[in-house]
Amino acid sequence: MEKVAVFPGSFDPITRGHDSVVRRAIPLFDRIILAIGDNPDKKPWFPLEKRISWLESLYKDEPKIQVVVYSGLTVEFCRQVNAKYILRGLRTSADFEFERTIGLMNKALYDEIETVFLLCDPAYAALSSSIVRDILKNGGDVSNFVPEGMNVRI
Amino acid sequence: MEKVAVFPGSFDPITRGHDSVVRRAIPLFDRIILAIGDNPDKKPWFPLEKRISWLESLYKDEPKIQVVVYSGLTVEFCRQVNAKYILRGLRTSADFEFERTIGLMNKALYDEIETVFLLCDPAYAALSSSIVRDILKNGGDVSNFVPEGMNVRI
Amino acid sequence: MEKVAVFPGSFDPITRGHDSVVRRAIPLFDRIILAIGDNPDKKPWFPLEKRISWLESLYKDEPKIQVVVYSGLTVEFCRQVNAKYILRGLRTSADFEFERTIGLMNKALYDEIETVFLLCDPAYAALSSSIVRDILKNGGDVSNFVPEGMNVRI
Amino acid sequence: MEKVAVFPGSFDPITRGHDSVVRRAIPLFDRIILAIGDNPDKKPWFPLEKRISWLESLYKDEPKIQVVVYSGLTVEFCRQVNAKYILRGLRTSADFEFERTIGLMNKALYDEIETVFLLCDPAYAALSSSIVRDILKNGGDVSNFVPEGMNVRI
Amino acid sequence: MEKVAVFPGSFDPITRGHDSVVRRAIPLFDRIILAIGDNPDKKPWFPLEKRISWLESLYKDEPKIQVVVYSGLTVEFCRQVNAKYILRGLRTSADFEFERTIGLMNKALYDEIETVFLLCDPAYAALSSSIVRDILKNGGDVSNFVPEGMNVRI
Amino acid sequence: MEKVAVFPGSFDPITRGHDSVVRRAIPLFDRIILAIGDNPDKKPWFPLEKRISWLESLYKDEPKIQVVVYSGLTVEFCRQVNAKYILRGLRTSADFEFERTIGLMNKALYDEIETVFLLCDPAYAALSSSIVRDILKNGGDVSNFVPEGMNVRI
Repeated sequence: MEKVAVFPGSFDPITRGHDSVVRRAIPLFDRIILAIGDNPDKKPWFPLEKRISWLESLYKDEPKIQVVVYSGLTVEFCRQVNAKYILRGLRTSADFEFERTIGLMNKALYDEIETVFLLCDPAYAALSSSIVRDILKNGGDVSNFVPEGMNVRI
Repeated sequence: MEKVAVFPGSFDPITRGHDSVVRRAIPLFDRIILAIGDNPDKKPWFPLEKRISWLESLYKDEPKIQVVVYSGLTVEFCRQVNAKYILRGLRTSADFEFERTIGLMNKALYDEIETVFLLCDPAYAALSSSIVRDILKNGGDVSNFVPEGMNVRI
Repeated sequence: MEKVAVFPGSFDPITRGHDSVVRRAIPLFDRIILAIGDNPDKKPWFPLEKRISWLESLYKDEPKIQVVVYSGLTVEFCRQVNAKYILRGLRTSADFEFERTIGLMNKALYDEIETVFLLCDPAYAALSSSIVRDILKNGGDVSNFVPEGMNVRI
Repeated sequence: MEKVAVFPGSFDPITRGHDSVVRRAIPLFDRIILAIGDNPDKKPWFPLEKRISWLESLYKDEPKIQVVVYSGLTVEFCRQVNAKYILRGLRTSADFEFERTIGLMNKALYDEIETVFLLCDPAYAALSSSIVRDILKNGGDVSNFVPEGMNVRI
Repeated sequence: MEKVAVFPGSFDPITRGHDSVVRRAIPLFDRIILAIGDNPDKKPWFPLEKRISWLESLYKDEPKIQVVVYSGLTVEFCRQVNAKYILRGLRTSADFEFERTIGLMNKALYDEIETVFLLCDPAYAALSSSIVRDILKNGGDVSNFVPEGMNVRI
Repeated sequence: MEKVAVFPGSFDPITRGHDSVVRRAIPLFDRIILAIGDNPDKKPWFPLEKRISWLESLYKDEPKIQVVVYSGLTVEFCRQVNAKYILRGLRTSADFEFERTIGLMNKALYDEIETVFLLCDPAYAALSSSIVRDILKNGGDVSNFVPEGMNVRI
């Protein structure tokens, strides 16, 4: 059976931390769906089109990677696309506590799903989309924090 | 002296995790007050009347349990109802860090109060009111996460 | 039914942290058994007789408190003495992680047992029997760390 | 070279916890700048003028302490005032996880900066500006939580 | 390329927690090697032969699972058997902190290795080999903690 | 007054993590004493002479750094050498919980002492002397984990 993983996120913007997890997971799966959550309650910083185009251009040479927008429960989306794995990166124990909660609830909602965690590269242990946005808002340079070649400006 | 415990919360909605803590605490106290905080700053998801009626119907056969709405400092409410104990459940170490802060401040404000913690049932370790609301917002089924017989819909 | 709590420990030696938890728990229970674990694998620093006599003299005016030596599983001891509660103090989230493991296993072994946690006084947040022993080994003065009047020397 | 530390915060209001960290750090540095972040996104509870005047009056006899308002990235401010150190207090491991993220990002943005942490006095381990504001909102008395002599009311 | 994972451990004894992680990982890999570390410094409780025979009998119907004894560095063993993945389960944030350290060191020693984490079933969140041994030493019954059909006695 | 810091440890062996903390702390203090604890209870892996000679050769060009062997309580040693600061690095929240306990006890024993923490370089977040020893015992190469030029072999 095809091994499909969903990597859910808002990618607002994608960081080098996300990118490192995704690339290291490629050999493990047959397909990885970068699933951009389109949540009516959360107002993103970057428009959806921008986030889609960043991801698509970043992984244009990776045939296993697909970019999809979804709304609703992540496990419902997994069921629809026949994915049995959710992929996540772990930086800190605070991350872990948060991810465990989500992971166990997802399993309670859909018993066939398994969350697969990889460690973040310690060089990016302090990196998150919200920190990248903070630096941008304050006029800083984020080129070392987003994947090479991405042009992230306000 | 009567042993009175206050279990403060917004119960928005009450979960199986809350219910398990409350029921296991019944033998320990003479009275447990389920104290619904009516906080003008926090907009609840379910109306106050709904939350009161859920709690009252859930514990209608438990003479030791009372449902009361309060506002202001929890310790002031405890003083008014002559409660010397605050009852809380602990799921994770993130919970603990949060609850310790609240518990120590409550003690600093009212030296006679003692916070009493029970462990949450590990089956509900990932459960919280906010996760239940998230599932509801996304159209999921929460009947396994709220006490049996409760009809929780948007 | 009589509410009996067991406070298990090696009390090697008892600290001000332990003492603060025990004294604050007295109003909550009808009886508290200070249960000195006599574990053949762990070599204590102070002889059993010394530890018994410290506890007995410390609580000689507290009719609710009993000092008992036990071996074997803590939950088996609880069953024998008809205790439905295990009493523990929590200092840090590291404590919590450890105590949760023990508490959940105890419940798995004996479903009627409930572990009841109180917060340690923050003034003693860094205090433990092993730190008291370390200070003693290095010739330091521990009189501020053990209950007043206890004469703890090597 | 002059050793300059920046202690950034919103001081909304300053607590006994902050004050304890600042005073213990005085001997370590030649100058400590209490840097009040003026962040357009975060609406403070107390007006900027009030927060400035509290800090200035509190440290009027400490020639090493300066009160400055800044906006933008903290590390940019440090560069401008020639500060090589950021001073922070640590209460809990949750604090640590948060501060490590900030500290590592600051270092990634400005390699010459070093964050220097002191432990908070355990007596103030549960204290924060947001808890002080919560108590105030609920009509409680905060005089034990803010530095002596400060008149903090709504 | 064949996807080979190593699940290293002392399995002294294997618990239901281990078993749950292994079985959920089977669909993800082409082969999983249960690698029993034979460490001259750590004296195991159960003889190596016993631990091998438990694992072999438990997974005799799982063609993807192999039982191998190794000594030396785990990453060296991975290199020899051509495994690019190390499989681990995560129960608590204390686990995570420990596993991250090991995982990052393994990566520092062998850049091609990736540690893949699954969440432990919360029902076994408090379970470990050392707790099983403790219960055994104290004469308790461990049949609910080890995989069904295993006969674990002292 | 001269600002003297003690960096206590067993340095068995010193790692790149230690070295990074020490070197970043040099500008902050007038003198840093690398204090090798000679603890009769802990059997070190490398002989004391070896550990002294590593430290001395590593910092031979740093006039602010001194290498001293001590036994007994760290705070007593600080008092003798007139040091008001203890220097420590923080890698993880597990580290923090441990260091806070030690730091608060040290302050309880000697009120004039202040523990000053720096963050470890995330590149060395998983590094410790005990991991270096483990790799050595298993025949691995540790040259990337100890300061350049050090010849660490069994």
